[in-house]
Amino acid sequence: MSAIAYEARADEYITALGSMDAVHPVDRAIVDAWAGGLSGPVLDAGCGPGHWTRHLADRGVDVRGVDLAPRFVEHARSAHPGVRFDVGSIDGLDAADGAFGGILSWFSTIHHEPEEISTPLREFARVTRPGGGLLVGFFVGTSLEPFDHAVTRAWRWPAGELARRVDAAGFDVIETHTREARGERAVGALRCERRA
Amino acid sequence: MSAIAYEARADEYITALGSMDAVHPVDRAIVDAWAGGLSGPVLDAGCGPGHWTRHLADRGVDVRGVDLAPRFVEHARSAHPGVRFDVGSIDGLDAADGAFGGILSWFSTIHHEPEEISTPLREFARVTRPGGGLLVGFFVGTSLEPFDHAVTRAWRWPAGELARRVDAAGFDVIETHTREARGERAVGALRCERRA
Repeated sequence: MSAIAYEARADEYITALGSMDAVHPVDRAIVDAWAGGLSGPVLDAGCGPGHWTRHLADRGVDVRGVDLAPRFVEHARSAHPGVRFDVGSIDGLDAADGAFGGILSWFSTIHHEPEEISTPLREFARVTRPGGGLLVGFFVGTSLEPFDHAVTRAWRWPAGELARRVDAAGFDVIETHTREARGERAVGALRCERRA
Repeated sequence: MSAIAYEARADEYITALGSMDAVHPVDRAIVDAWAGGLSGPVLDAGCGPGHWTRHLADRGVDVRGVDLAPRFVEHARSAHPGVRFDVGSIDGLDAADGAFGGILSWFSTIHHEPEEISTPLREFARVTRPGGGLLVGFFVGTSLEPFDHAVTRAWRWPAGELARRVDAAGFDVIETHTREARGERAVGALRCERRA
Protein backbone atom coordinates (compact mmCIF):
# COMPACT_ATOMS: atom_id res chain seq x y z
CA MET A 1 0.00 0.00 0.00
CA SER A 2 1.51 3.24 -1.10
CA ALA A 3 0.81 5.22 2.08
CA ILE A 4 2.94 2.80 4.07
CA ALA A 5 5.66 2.81 1.43
CA TYR A 6 5.66 6.61 1.40
CA GLU A 7 5.73 6.77 5.20
CA ALA A 8 8.93 4.76 5.17
CA ARG A 9 10.67 7.10 2.75
CA ALA A 10 8.84 10.33 3.44
CA ASP A 11 11.81 12.32 4.70
CA GLU A 12 13.93 11.31 1.73
CA TYR A 13 11.08 12.24 -0.62
CA ILE A 14 10.49 15.57 1.09
CA THR A 15 14.17 16.50 0.75
CA ALA A 16 14.38 15.52 -2.91
CA LEU A 17 11.00 16.66 -4.23
CA GLY A 18 9.14 18.57 -1.55
CA SER A 19 9.83 22.06 -2.85
CA MET A 20 8.88 24.23 -5.80
CA ASP A 21 12.60 24.55 -6.53
CA ALA A 22 12.53 20.95 -7.74
CA VAL A 23 9.62 21.64 -10.11
CA HIS A 24 10.14 22.04 -13.87
CA PRO A 25 9.15 25.60 -14.86
CA VAL A 26 6.90 24.19 -17.57
CA ASP A 27 4.99 22.13 -14.99
CA ARG A 28 4.55 25.25 -12.96
CA ALA A 29 3.14 27.03 -16.03
CA ILE A 30 0.77 24.12 -16.75
CA VAL A 31 -0.58 24.18 -13.19
CA ASP A 32 -0.75 27.98 -13.02
CA ALA A 33 -2.55 28.29 -16.36
CA TRP A 34 -5.07 25.68 -15.22
CA ALA A 35 -5.58 27.19 -11.77
CA GLY A 36 -6.03 30.67 -13.23
CA GLY A 37 -9.17 29.51 -15.03
CA LEU A 38 -10.92 28.03 -11.98
CA SER A 39 -13.46 29.44 -9.61
CA GLY A 40 -14.28 28.06 -6.18
CA PRO A 41 -12.23 26.02 -3.75
CA VAL A 42 -9.54 23.66 -4.94
CA LEU A 43 -8.36 20.34 -3.55
CA ASP A 44 -4.75 19.21 -3.91
CA ALA A 45 -5.57 15.52 -3.93
CA GLY A 46 -2.55 13.46 -2.91
CA CYS A 47 -0.63 16.57 -1.93
CA GLY A 48 2.48 14.85 -0.55
CA PRO A 49 4.66 17.40 1.28
CA GLY A 50 2.27 20.19 0.27
CA HIS A 51 4.51 22.39 -1.86
CA TRP A 52 1.96 22.66 -4.68
CA THR A 53 -0.81 23.37 -2.17
CA ARG A 54 1.27 26.17 -0.73
CA HIS A 55 2.16 27.46 -4.19
CA LEU A 56 -1.52 27.73 -5.11
CA ALA A 57 -2.39 29.32 -1.76
CA ASP A 58 0.32 31.91 -2.34
CA ARG A 59 -1.36 32.73 -5.64
CA GLY A 60 -4.65 33.44 -3.92
CA VAL A 61 -6.34 30.10 -4.52
CA ASP A 62 -8.64 28.82 -1.76
CA VAL A 63 -6.92 25.45 -1.58
CA ARG A 64 -6.45 22.58 0.81
CA GLY A 65 -4.42 19.43 0.61
CA VAL A 66 -5.15 15.81 1.43
CA ASP A 67 -2.73 12.90 1.57
CA LEU A 68 -2.84 9.34 2.79
CA ALA A 69 0.61 9.47 4.42
CA PRO A 70 0.46 11.06 7.90
CA ARG A 71 4.16 11.97 7.73
CA PHE A 72 3.54 14.12 4.65
CA VAL A 73 0.57 15.84 6.25
CA GLU A 74 2.54 16.46 9.44
CA HIS A 75 5.37 17.99 7.40
CA ALA A 76 2.97 20.05 5.25
CA ARG A 77 1.20 21.51 8.29
CA SER A 78 4.48 22.50 9.84
CA ALA A 79 6.14 23.83 6.66
CA HIS A 80 3.07 25.66 5.38
CA PRO A 81 1.16 27.11 8.33
CA GLY A 82 -2.11 28.73 7.37
CA VAL A 83 -2.86 26.12 4.72
CA ARG A 84 -5.24 23.29 5.59
CA PHE A 85 -3.99 19.72 5.22
CA ASP A 86 -5.87 16.54 6.08
CA VAL A 87 -5.01 12.87 6.17
CA GLY A 88 -7.27 11.04 3.77
CA SER A 89 -7.57 8.81 0.74
CA ILE A 90 -8.28 9.98 -2.78
CA ASP A 91 -10.31 6.78 -3.14
CA GLY A 92 -12.88 8.17 -0.72
CA LEU A 93 -12.75 11.90 -0.09
CA ASP A 94 -14.31 13.50 2.94
CA ALA A 95 -16.11 16.16 0.90
CA ALA A 96 -19.64 16.85 -0.34
CA ASP A 97 -20.71 16.31 -3.94
CA GLY A 98 -19.66 19.29 -6.06
CA ALA A 99 -17.69 20.83 -3.20
CA PHE A 100 -14.76 21.92 -5.37
CA GLY A 101 -14.14 24.11 -8.37
CA GLY A 102 -10.99 22.19 -9.16
CA ILE A 103 -8.95 19.11 -8.26
CA LEU A 104 -5.20 18.94 -8.69
CA SER A 105 -4.11 15.32 -8.95
CA TRP A 106 -0.40 15.73 -9.48
CA PHE A 107 1.11 12.26 -9.87
CA SER A 108 -1.25 11.09 -7.16
CA THR A 109 -2.81 8.23 -9.15
CA ILE A 110 0.47 6.79 -10.44
CA HIS A 111 0.41 3.86 -8.02
CA HIS A 112 -3.17 2.81 -8.76
CA GLU A 113 -3.49 -0.44 -10.68
CA PRO A 114 -5.23 0.06 -14.03
CA GLU A 115 -8.32 -1.77 -12.79
CA GLU A 116 -8.49 0.51 -9.73
CA ILE A 117 -7.76 3.95 -11.18
CA SER A 118 -11.42 4.64 -11.89
CA THR A 119 -12.06 4.79 -8.15
CA PRO A 120 -10.18 8.07 -7.51
CA LEU A 121 -11.19 9.48 -10.92
CA ARG A 122 -14.88 8.95 -10.13
CA GLU A 123 -14.33 10.37 -6.67
CA PHE A 124 -12.79 13.50 -8.26
CA ALA A 125 -15.84 13.76 -10.52
CA ARG A 126 -18.18 13.42 -7.55
CA VAL A 127 -16.63 16.28 -5.58
CA THR A 128 -16.15 18.63 -8.56
CA ARG A 129 -18.95 20.95 -9.58
CA PRO A 130 -20.10 20.91 -13.22
CA GLY A 131 -17.72 23.05 -15.29
CA GLY A 132 -15.03 22.64 -12.65
CA GLY A 133 -11.50 21.57 -13.47
CA LEU A 134 -9.25 18.58 -12.98
CA LEU A 135 -5.53 18.48 -13.72
CA VAL A 136 -3.91 15.04 -13.75
CA GLY A 137 -0.12 14.68 -13.77
CA PHE A 138 1.19 11.23 -14.70
CA PHE A 139 4.03 9.19 -16.18
CA VAL A 140 3.75 8.65 -19.91
CA GLY A 141 4.47 5.38 -21.70
CA THR A 142 3.94 4.06 -25.19
CA SER A 143 2.03 1.22 -23.57
CA LEU A 144 0.33 0.77 -20.21
CA GLU A 145 3.02 -0.82 -18.07
CA PRO A 146 4.25 -0.94 -14.49
CA PHE A 147 7.72 0.16 -13.43
CA ASP A 148 9.75 0.21 -10.25
CA HIS A 149 9.25 3.67 -8.85
CA ALA A 150 11.60 4.67 -6.00
CA VAL A 151 8.81 4.32 -3.48
CA THR A 152 6.54 1.57 -4.76
CA ARG A 153 5.33 0.14 -8.07
CA ALA A 154 3.88 2.76 -10.41
CA TRP A 155 2.36 2.77 -13.89
CA ARG A 156 3.12 4.47 -17.16
CA TRP A 157 0.04 5.39 -19.19
CA PRO A 158 -0.33 6.26 -22.85
CA ALA A 159 -1.93 9.70 -22.69
CA GLY A 160 -4.89 8.61 -24.81
CA GLU A 161 -5.59 5.60 -22.62
CA LEU A 162 -5.60 7.61 -19.40
CA ALA A 163 -7.70 10.28 -21.13
CA ARG A 164 -10.33 7.60 -21.88
CA ARG A 165 -10.48 6.65 -18.20
CA VAL A 166 -10.80 10.28 -17.17
CA ASP A 167 -13.51 10.84 -19.77
CA ALA A 168 -15.40 7.77 -18.57
CA ALA A 169 -15.33 9.16 -15.03
CA GLY A 170 -17.21 12.28 -16.17
CA PHE A 171 -14.64 14.76 -17.43
CA ASP A 172 -13.90 16.19 -20.87
CA VAL A 173 -10.18 16.19 -21.56
CA ILE A 174 -9.48 19.56 -23.12
CA GLU A 175 -5.69 19.67 -23.23
CA THR A 176 -2.92 17.06 -23.13
CA HIS A 177 0.70 17.95 -22.40
CA THR A 178 3.69 15.62 -22.61
CA ARG A 179 7.36 16.10 -21.90
CA GLU A 180 10.22 13.72 -22.54
CA ALA A 181 13.71 14.61 -21.42
CA ARG A 182 16.98 12.81 -21.82
CA GLY A 183 17.61 10.67 -18.75
CA GLU A 184 14.22 11.32 -17.17
CA ARG A 185 10.88 9.56 -17.17
CA ALA A 186 8.40 10.97 -19.68
CA VAL A 187 5.59 12.87 -18.00
CA GLY A 188 2.22 14.21 -19.00
CA ALA A 189 -0.67 16.31 -17.80
CA LEU A 190 -4.36 16.16 -18.70
CA ARG A 191 -6.37 19.33 -18.28
CA CYS A 192 -10.00 18.36 -17.87
CA GLU A 193 -13.41 19.85 -17.28
CA ARG A 194 -16.28 18.28 -15.35
CA ARG A 195 -19.25 17.60 -17.61
CA ALA A 196 -22.62 18.96 -16.45
CA MET B 1 7.10 30.43 -51.63
CA SER B 2 6.13 31.19 -48.11
CA ALA B 3 7.54 34.73 -47.97
CA ILE B 4 5.21 35.81 -50.77
CA ALA B 5 2.27 34.01 -49.20
CA TYR B 6 2.97 35.66 -45.86
CA GLU B 7 3.37 39.09 -47.48
CA ALA B 8 -0.14 38.78 -48.88
CA ARG B 9 -1.66 38.00 -45.49
CA ALA B 10 0.82 39.70 -43.18
CA ASP B 11 -1.57 42.24 -41.67
CA GLU B 12 -4.15 39.58 -40.93
CA TYR B 13 -1.45 37.40 -39.35
CA ILE B 14 -0.06 40.26 -37.29
CA THR B 15 -3.50 41.08 -35.89
CA ALA B 16 -4.32 37.46 -35.02
CA LEU B 17 -0.98 36.18 -33.80
CA GLY B 18 1.55 39.01 -33.58
CA SER B 19 1.37 39.54 -29.83
CA MET B 20 2.40 37.73 -26.67
CA ASP B 21 -1.27 37.95 -25.61
CA ALA B 22 -2.00 35.29 -28.22
CA VAL B 23 0.69 32.97 -26.85
CA HIS B 24 -0.18 29.96 -24.68
CA PRO B 25 1.34 30.47 -21.20
CA VAL B 26 2.97 27.05 -21.44
CA ASP B 27 4.74 28.03 -24.68
CA ARG B 28 6.00 31.12 -22.92
CA ALA B 29 7.36 28.95 -20.12
CA ILE B 30 9.03 26.59 -22.59
CA VAL B 31 10.77 29.47 -24.36
CA ASP B 32 11.68 31.26 -21.13
CA ALA B 33 13.10 28.12 -19.51
CA TRP B 34 15.20 27.49 -22.63
CA ALA B 35 16.38 31.08 -22.96
CA GLY B 36 17.30 31.26 -19.28
CA GLY B 37 19.95 28.60 -19.82
CA LEU B 38 21.71 30.28 -22.75
CA SER B 39 24.74 32.51 -22.91
CA GLY B 40 25.66 34.72 -25.80
CA PRO B 41 23.55 36.36 -28.52
CA VAL B 42 20.33 34.76 -29.71
CA LEU B 43 18.71 34.74 -33.14
CA ASP B 44 14.94 34.61 -33.53
CA ALA B 45 15.04 32.80 -36.86
CA GLY B 46 11.83 33.37 -38.79
CA CYS B 47 10.65 35.95 -36.30
CA GLY B 48 7.46 37.00 -38.11
CA PRO B 49 6.02 40.14 -36.46
CA GLY B 50 8.76 40.02 -33.82
CA HIS B 51 6.76 39.56 -30.63
CA TRP B 52 8.98 36.71 -29.38
CA THR B 53 12.09 38.71 -30.24
CA ARG B 54 10.76 41.60 -28.23
CA HIS B 55 9.73 39.31 -25.38
CA LEU B 56 13.28 37.93 -25.13
CA ALA B 57 14.81 41.40 -25.42
CA ASP B 58 12.59 42.56 -22.56
CA ARG B 59 14.01 39.73 -20.47
CA GLY B 60 17.54 40.93 -21.05
CA VAL B 61 18.49 38.59 -23.89
CA ASP B 62 20.81 40.02 -26.57
CA VAL B 63 18.51 38.99 -29.41
CA ARG B 64 17.79 39.93 -32.98
CA GLY B 65 15.16 38.73 -35.43
CA VAL B 66 15.30 37.72 -39.06
CA ASP B 67 12.40 37.00 -41.39
CA LEU B 68 11.97 36.50 -45.10
CA ALA B 69 8.82 38.61 -45.35
CA PRO B 70 9.64 42.36 -45.58
CA ARG B 71 6.19 43.31 -44.28
CA PHE B 72 6.86 41.43 -41.04
CA VAL B 73 10.26 43.04 -40.62
CA GLU B 74 8.83 46.48 -41.31
CA HIS B 75 6.12 45.88 -38.70
CA ALA B 76 8.61 44.47 -36.19
CA ARG B 77 10.94 47.45 -36.52
CA SER B 78 8.11 49.87 -36.00
CA ALA B 79 6.40 47.97 -33.17
CA HIS B 80 9.60 47.06 -31.31
CA PRO B 81 12.06 49.95 -31.63
CA GLY B 82 15.45 49.21 -30.13
CA VAL B 83 15.38 45.58 -31.29
CA ARG B 84 17.25 44.65 -34.46
CA PHE B 85 15.33 42.99 -37.28
CA ASP B 86 16.66 41.99 -40.68
CA VAL B 87 15.13 40.61 -43.84
CA GLY B 88 16.73 37.28 -44.60
CA SER B 89 16.25 33.58 -45.16
CA ILE B 90 16.77 30.86 -42.57
CA ASP B 91 18.10 28.75 -45.45
CA GLY B 92 21.15 31.00 -45.65
CA LEU B 93 21.80 33.21 -42.65
CA ASP B 94 23.95 36.31 -42.84
CA ALA B 95 26.00 35.33 -39.77
CA ALA B 96 29.41 33.88 -38.99
CA ASP B 97 29.94 30.28 -37.91
CA GLY B 98 29.25 29.95 -34.19
CA ALA B 99 27.94 33.50 -33.95
CA PHE B 100 25.05 32.63 -31.64
CA GLY B 101 24.53 31.10 -28.24
CA GLY B 102 21.00 30.15 -29.21
CA ILE B 103 18.54 29.97 -32.08
CA LEU B 104 14.79 30.22 -31.60
CA SER B 105 13.02 28.60 -34.53
CA TRP B 106 9.41 29.00 -33.48
CA PHE B 107 7.23 27.42 -36.17
CA SER B 108 9.63 28.84 -38.74
CA THR B 109 10.38 25.53 -40.49
CA ILE B 110 6.74 24.39 -40.78
CA HIS B 111 6.53 25.20 -44.49
CA HIS B 112 9.74 23.41 -45.48
CA GLU B 113 9.23 20.24 -47.48
CA PRO B 114 10.63 17.18 -45.67
CA GLU B 115 13.46 16.89 -48.20
CA GLU B 116 14.37 20.55 -47.64
CA ILE B 117 14.16 20.93 -43.88
CA SER B 118 17.78 19.93 -43.36
CA THR B 119 18.86 23.15 -45.04
CA PRO B 120 17.72 25.50 -42.26
CA LEU B 121 18.59 22.95 -39.55
CA ARG B 122 22.17 22.70 -40.81
CA GLU B 123 22.30 26.46 -41.10
CA PHE B 124 21.20 26.74 -37.45
CA ALA B 125 23.98 24.31 -36.52
CA ARG B 126 26.53 26.32 -38.47
CA VAL B 127 25.78 29.60 -36.70
CA THR B 128 25.41 28.10 -33.20
CA ARG B 129 28.44 27.71 -30.99
CA PRO B 130 29.16 24.28 -29.47
CA GLY B 131 27.02 23.88 -26.39
CA GLY B 132 24.62 26.52 -27.65
CA GLY B 133 20.88 25.99 -27.78
CA LEU B 134 18.17 25.53 -30.37
CA LEU B 135 14.45 25.53 -29.69
CA VAL B 136 12.22 24.30 -32.50
CA GLY B 137 8.44 24.85 -32.38
CA PHE B 138 6.41 22.74 -34.81
CA PHE B 139 3.08 21.09 -35.58
CA VAL B 140 2.83 17.52 -34.35
CA GLY B 141 1.29 14.64 -36.30
CA THR B 142 1.14 10.90 -35.88
CA SER B 143 2.68 10.70 -39.35
CA LEU B 144 4.63 13.14 -41.50
CA GLU B 145 1.95 14.81 -43.58
CA PRO B 146 1.14 18.13 -45.22
CA PHE B 147 -1.91 20.19 -44.36
CA ASP B 148 -3.53 23.39 -45.56
CA HIS B 149 -2.21 26.06 -43.25
CA ALA B 150 -4.00 29.44 -43.42
CA VAL B 151 -1.04 30.98 -45.23
CA THR B 152 0.50 28.21 -47.32
CA ARG B 153 1.03 24.45 -47.14
CA ALA B 154 2.68 23.27 -43.94
CA TRP B 155 3.75 19.94 -42.49
CA ARG B 156 2.97 17.97 -39.37
CA TRP B 157 5.90 16.00 -37.97
CA PRO B 158 6.00 13.12 -35.53
CA ALA B 159 8.24 14.48 -32.77
CA GLY B 160 10.68 11.60 -33.08
CA GLU B 161 11.04 12.03 -36.84
CA LEU B 162 11.80 15.74 -36.57
CA ALA B 163 14.16 15.01 -33.68
CA ARG B 164 16.13 12.67 -35.96
CA ARG B 165 16.52 15.43 -38.53
CA VAL B 166 17.63 17.89 -35.88
CA ASP B 167 20.08 15.37 -34.49
CA ALA B 168 21.48 14.68 -37.96
CA ALA B 169 22.06 18.41 -38.39
CA GLY B 170 24.37 18.45 -35.35
CA PHE B 171 22.19 18.91 -32.27
CA ASP B 172 21.36 16.67 -29.34
CA VAL B 173 17.65 16.77 -28.57
CA ILE B 174 17.42 17.03 -24.81
CA GLU B 175 13.74 17.71 -24.23
CA THR B 176 10.56 17.17 -26.23
CA HIS B 177 7.28 18.87 -25.38
CA THR B 178 3.90 18.23 -26.97
CA ARG B 179 0.48 19.78 -26.46
CA GLU B 180 -2.81 18.71 -27.92
CA ALA B 181 -5.93 20.74 -27.27
CA ARG B 182 -9.52 20.22 -28.28
CA GLY B 183 -10.18 22.08 -31.52
CA GLU B 184 -6.56 23.10 -32.08
CA ARG B 185 -3.64 21.69 -34.00
CA ALA B 186 -1.24 19.64 -31.88
CA VAL B 187 2.05 21.42 -31.32
CA GLY B 188 5.48 20.50 -30.08
CA ALA B 189 8.83 21.92 -29.11
CA LEU B 190 12.29 20.36 -29.27
CA ARG B 191 14.90 21.75 -26.92
CA CYS B 192 18.30 21.00 -28.39
CA GLU B 193 21.97 21.53 -27.73
CA ARG B 194 24.69 21.99 -30.35
CA ARG B 195 27.21 19.14 -30.22
CA ALA B 196 30.84 20.13 -30.00
